[in-house]
Amino acid sequence: MTKALIFDVFGTVVDWRTGVAREVESFFAQHSKTIDATTFADAWRAKYQPSMAEIRKQGRSYVALDVLHRENLESTLMDFDLDGAFDDDALYVLTRAWEKLPPWPDSVSGLTKLKSQYAIATCSNGSISLMTWLAKFGGLPWDAILGAQIAENYKPHPSVYLKSVASLGLEPKEVMMVAAHNGDLAAARETGLKTAFIHRPNEHGPNQTTDLKAESDWDYIAFDMNDLARQLVK
Amino acid sequence: MTKALIFDVFGTVVDWRTGVAREVESFFAQHSKTIDATTFADAWRAKYQPSMAEIRKQGRSYVALDVLHRENLESTLMDFDLDGAFDDDALYVLTRAWEKLPPWPDSVSGLTKLKSQYAIATCSNGSISLMTWLAKFGGLPWDAILGAQIAENYKPHPSVYLKSVASLGLEPKEVMMVAAHNGDLAAARETGLKTAFIHRPNEHGPNQTTDLKAESDWDYIAFDMNDLARQLVK
Repeated sequence: MTKALIFDVFGTVVDWRTGVAREVESFFAQHSKTIDATTFADAWRAKYQPSMAEIRKQGRSYVALDVLHRENLESTLMDFDLDGAFDDDALYVLTRAWEKLPPWPDSVSGLTKLKSQYAIATCSNGSISLMTWLAKFGGLPWDAILGAQIAENYKPHPSVYLKSVASLGLEPKEVMMVAAHNGDLAAARETGLKTAFIHRPNEHGPNQTTDLKAESDWDYIAFDMNDLARQLVK
Repeated sequence: MTKALIFDVFGTVVDWRTGVAREVESFFAQHSKTIDATTFADAWRAKYQPSMAEIRKQGRSYVALDVLHRENLESTLMDFDLDGAFDDDALYVLTRAWEKLPPWPDSVSGLTKLKSQYAIATCSNGSISLMTWLAKFGGLPWDAILGAQIAENYKPHPSVYLKSVASLGLEPKEVMMVAAHNGDLAAARETGLKTAFIHRPNEHGPNQTTDLKAESDWDYIAFDMNDLARQLVK
């Protein structure tokens, strides 16, 4: 019997692309500079997977995603010929753009319904700090913040799912991973969790090419969080 | 400026003595046995501090409080000449009495008000699992579950406060420890946190002799959680 649901957050629960672009736009305007904010957000995010890969392969000790976001920001600024354009305090502020991402319109209501019957927790690559402030920003009603920092590793490494499950005192079969990414669900299923796919066809904007549909027979497939609640809440 | 409040839970937020006694009473009745449930609860709890002391002094590696509660339960049953009276499954159930403790009547409303202005998180010796299910049971609206398991040590070891603060991306001076125990606050102040004392004169029943009043000039002193919210929420 499923007792808890654990969630991917970036893309599944919040619209990181719109949120980061909005913060980038506002930040550059405050510094009297202009930028194509969406292009910048995409470039910044493109460094996300490679930066975690080194830690997954244990070539580098775990550092929180906030550290990787800051490094990737500095590298993205170099790509845009903007290295040295901002001081340390300004870069600290801009890095925290990732704490100010809007939930998808159905996220808060869907999570609130799911919470009435299940424990709901994050299983994101974001740090505890990032996830906590992001939840405050968007009113996400988590019961617990789990995921990468609990395991000191990054998804899809199996330890992230397994440590999150163990932190709830449960067995993998009692927990369902909820994500908009087929790869995340495949890794979760591999460790024994149940799986639910949420359609987020605009996570990467209008020209998204990946994760447009469920690519396996996940236990549940939902078009948004309210639909998942309709299927799961008795 | 204070950005987050972290809370002791057993005694400060929930009434462990009433809750454990109620669960013990019901458990023994189900097994057609009688017991003085409050005496049993007090005896079980009396083993709490000594069992953590060995881990604090690093004579033993960190194990979650659920493990210590189970060991202390078996030892308490021996003291009551009841060793062997229950099988493993039954002991597992009874150990989880600690997940079913009623909040003090002011806790949920006070925490909800405090949450509107601050991040609120646990800084308890309970495990993430125990704290998560306890929050589900009583409707405690935490933003994050921090404390002992994050640090793999037990309060009042300084690492528990400092790791909880770091997990919010904050400095100690930006965080306030809230507790009904002077010793907990003294340890938190030692690591640089702000402090708030909550009066819980009945935590140990009508004959309580400890923590009947604030024993230092804590930053805030409140007679309950709603009073703390009145003082802290603008």
